[in-house]
Amino acid sequence: MDKYILTITCPDTTGLVAAVSGFLRDYACFMDESFQYGDPETRTFFMRAVFTPSATSPGAAEIQQRFGALATPFKMTWEIVPAARRPRVLIAVSKIGHCLHDLLHRWQAGQMPIDVVGVFSNHEDMRSIVEWHDIPYHYLPLSPGGKDAQEAAWLKIADEARVDLVVLARYMQVLSPATARKLAGHCINIHHSFLPSFMGAKPYQQAFARGVKIIGATAHYVTDGLDEGPIIEQAVERVDHTHSVADMIAVGRDLENVVLSRAVRYHAERRVLPNGQKTVVFR
Amino acid sequence: MDKYILTITCPDTTGLVAAVSGFLRDYACFMDESFQYGDPETRTFFMRAVFTPSATSPGAAEIQQRFGALATPFKMTWEIVPAARRPRVLIAVSKIGHCLHDLLHRWQAGQMPIDVVGVFSNHEDMRSIVEWHDIPYHYLPLSPGGKDAQEAAWLKIADEARVDLVVLARYMQVLSPATARKLAGHCINIHHSFLPSFMGAKPYQQAFARGVKIIGATAHYVTDGLDEGPIIEQAVERVDHTHSVADMIAVGRDLENVVLSRAVRYHAERRVLPNGQKTVVFR
Amino acid sequence: MDKYILTITCPDTTGLVAAVSGFLRDYACFMDESFQYGDPETRTFFMRAVFTPSATSPGAAEIQQRFGALATPFKMTWEIVPAARRPRVLIAVSKIGHCLHDLLHRWQAGQMPIDVVGVFSNHEDMRSIVEWHDIPYHYLPLSPGGKDAQEAAWLKIADEARVDLVVLARYMQVLSPATARKLAGHCINIHHSFLPSFMGAKPYQQAFARGVKIIGATAHYVTDGLDEGPIIEQAVERVDHTHSVADMIAVGRDLENVVLSRAVRYHAERRVLPNGQKTVVFR
Amino acid sequence: MDKYILTITCPDTTGLVAAVSGFLRDYACFMDESFQYGDPETRTFFMRAVFTPSATSPGAAEIQQRFGALATPFKMTWEIVPAARRPRVLIAVSKIGHCLHDLLHRWQAGQMPIDVVGVFSNHEDMRSIVEWHDIPYHYLPLSPGGKDAQEAAWLKIADEARVDLVVLARYMQVLSPATARKLAGHCINIHHSFLPSFMGAKPYQQAFARGVKIIGATAHYVTDGLDEGPIIEQAVERVDHTHSVADMIAVGRDLENVVLSRAVRYHAERRVLPNGQKTVVFR
Repeated sequence: MDKYILTITCPDTTGLVAAVSGFLRDYACFMDESFQYGDPETRTFFMRAVFTPSATSPGAAEIQQRFGALATPFKMTWEIVPAARRPRVLIAVSKIGHCLHDLLHRWQAGQMPIDVVGVFSNHEDMRSIVEWHDIPYHYLPLSPGGKDAQEAAWLKIADEARVDLVVLARYMQVLSPATARKLAGHCINIHHSFLPSFMGAKPYQQAFARGVKIIGATAHYVTDGLDEGPIIEQAVERVDHTHSVADMIAVGRDLENVVLSRAVRYHAERRVLPNGQKTVVFR
Repeated sequence: MDKYILTITCPDTTGLVAAVSGFLRDYACFMDESFQYGDPETRTFFMRAVFTPSATSPGAAEIQQRFGALATPFKMTWEIVPAARRPRVLIAVSKIGHCLHDLLHRWQAGQMPIDVVGVFSNHEDMRSIVEWHDIPYHYLPLSPGGKDAQEAAWLKIADEARVDLVVLARYMQVLSPATARKLAGHCINIHHSFLPSFMGAKPYQQAFARGVKIIGATAHYVTDGLDEGPIIEQAVERVDHTHSVADMIAVGRDLENVVLSRAVRYHAERRVLPNGQKTVVFR
Repeated sequence: MDKYILTITCPDTTGLVAAVSGFLRDYACFMDESFQYGDPETRTFFMRAVFTPSATSPGAAEIQQRFGALATPFKMTWEIVPAARRPRVLIAVSKIGHCLHDLLHRWQAGQMPIDVVGVFSNHEDMRSIVEWHDIPYHYLPLSPGGKDAQEAAWLKIADEARVDLVVLARYMQVLSPATARKLAGHCINIHHSFLPSFMGAKPYQQAFARGVKIIGATAHYVTDGLDEGPIIEQAVERVDHTHSVADMIAVGRDLENVVLSRAVRYHAERRVLPNGQKTVVFR
Repeated sequence: MDKYILTITCPDTTGLVAAVSGFLRDYACFMDESFQYGDPETRTFFMRAVFTPSATSPGAAEIQQRFGALATPFKMTWEIVPAARRPRVLIAVSKIGHCLHDLLHRWQAGQMPIDVVGVFSNHEDMRSIVEWHDIPYHYLPLSPGGKDAQEAAWLKIADEARVDLVVLARYMQVLSPATARKLAGHCINIHHSFLPSFMGAKPYQQAFARGVKIIGATAHYVTDGLDEGPIIEQAVERVDHTHSVADMIAVGRDLENVVLSRAVRYHAERRVLPNGQKTVVFR
């Protein structure tokens, strides 16, 4: 039987796990995995479960409907989706291609549970590798004063392709506040520093100037506050006084690849639940 | 109200989480934390839950009794213990004191949920710091042919002090197979290598000779196979060609302290469930 | 023969290594270790060498005098000191004792090449462990408006004990700008965050609020800019959404111990050379 | 002016650095970087220097000749090569493509100082991506009893293409002892474990069965002892009881990419000097 993923966010109270796991048992579903977390600060409950219906379980639509009845009194925000459903992803890139290459290779090798429906860029540099992967490449140059129109253009592409997730894979452009809000929770950016250190432009130059002994990369949801969105994943690597800015950039590439691909995979597998300005990540 | 920790190991089947969480809800207990894992290889289910009874819950003894009725048909191995109960710990040490110092400082600073009831050693070196902490120090020298008697002596100390856990904090002696079996699951050793690399004596010398670029430390339950018991925790650190054996030993001390103290804390908080030759650690 | 440590900072030019290594050869000294670095940005040269005179070498005083003649035309800032000379260290602490415990244990176990000549604190909590180590404990309470007098008191202690290095081992007090400047390059602080993230008070609370996935600790020289001094060493550890502030504090203790003890050891072994707002660390 | 890289291995003695750095000064060469290491165990001296001749320096050929005169009495094994010279690399791959993809992307992005002159494989799977990079793809299938002929075929390709380095990028075949010896110091393999743990086949399965909490990858020079060659680089990542073998394989891919690409880059930049069964790596 096909597996399903259930995600829940709601006010914390006694009996939540019992209600959910009892529901699954009563409908003869096997719970393959279950993680839950109660935030003691906000008294919010988060849960992600993977379950497999059996021959005697009702159909998917009926499960959805009956779970809705259970969810209402608990004030749950919830979803049940087939585990095989892959988010439709649009990737944005600039001239800097390592994160794009890395995502596409993982995807082509069957390691990323996403459907890449297109790549857009304000440069032509990455067209060749994208088209080698048989993915549409949208060249949307940026001209002075033309940012709103360019943004509208790729939002239209995203709408028409029924995109679930926009990945800024070193896109190097700040989204307009309106677009950032519209894509809230559905747009992941890779920032090339260990946030909140070195927000904004040229973080490796900032890290070099400060003389830090460790550098990092951060994947986060985009919000209208620059580099201030909820953090999904981070990683770091040691550097020392011999590392030039160029050396740090080279070390950072590996961090960015690993961090961004993890964040996209966690999101695609519905492991990331927003918690205000933070995230719960059930790895 | 006081918190309780529930741990369960049993054959995996549908409805286990529902049964347990339903039980807690029915007896008006709030489930503060819950982790479960089904091993797909052995079809074994593991669970650790922390719960808080409420004013309307039955008493602890009655909860125990009723849970027993639930547990039997599922063939559960289970325990419910007060979260405040601290294991009684006997520490073994040789002349090498860093792990002992570290454990005692953490314990004295309120960071280790254990009761240290004594320290024994085949040397006198650590008497002063142990007695400064107001802990009995048992000097049990080892003479040729005297190992069995020495082991019997500290096993007697452990019995009389109702010890729950023996910690070999760089004790540097191999336990007899009979003692290792007797203490199975109740004796933690720190091995100064990244097991299974460099089992046996002088692991840093072995690591130096092999020219590894990373060294490690491993905390594991003692079994009658030398350095082959279930691993609880490991950590590593980079080294390079400039590190002498002495340098590796110095780097390793910090690893050993961190790894051993984590393993003891995980065990004390009942986060470690044995799974054959492996462990499930609900961190 | 006894070893010596030579450290040099000067404008970079051709022939520096040749001049220094030629000098040592000409005076029959064996160069055990040598690290040098030319900062391409500031065109500054840094060098640290360890050498051993032979039976035919001149005496230490004569080596010093002749090296001075070599150094002048190159505009070197330099020192030659016996490798066995240990800096005299005064440690400051508050009620939070883990860094102090850790330093004292390493020192007592022969792992820290320093002489601890005293500990001062604005609290009495750490007196017992310090006196167990036979080290003078100076209780210097802080009263409203009494900060200058208290600072003067421990500066006097430092002067009288001919202290080379003041270590703020979670002292939790900001030094006055004048004192910070006076101790420039001779006062190491441990900050419990991965600087420059979370400067100032309560960094773990800041890290918790931001939802970072990795926390850190930073040892740096004290300057009159709060938490802005040259960084000597940093380390990090992963956390996740389940870590409360208290959990982060617990994880952070191990980081702080390791980072501070490394920084003090690097300084004591003369491995740290200041480079403006940064450091060169020849590890 | 063009930069040159000088590497030296010889018996350790007084005056080596003085001789080399004096030579460079006397011929008006600026020493950009210099690392040296004396192995106290074997009394062997290792040095890597980068230098830039000036307008008044002799030509490259004359520098080579004169350095030879210096080198002989010290019994130096040495080389002076233009820093811009890139080793000619032949890559071997099986059906598992992540290391190949990663190397080719880094190379194409200008991040790997190598010339990739060809790829060979006993499978056709990787032909497309290799040819997209305009690199010759040699399909050399392995049939029962045909291993010697297949090895001879790619050795002939390597000879004709004047290959300096063979990289086994998850080639999954053991070289014959004769070929391993012939390529000594010129063939790098990536092993998908933290050696010496889990040598031989299926290391992730071995790691899973042992229940380790950290897995790793190791790049090493190939010798005729399986997985026993000198280690160049290693990296590790945490895993836990929830990681299946497939999960470990996925985590391992990122480690393998990073470790192999670092090892190849260090080798290409002449940072790796063999030291018996170990390596000196001047990073």
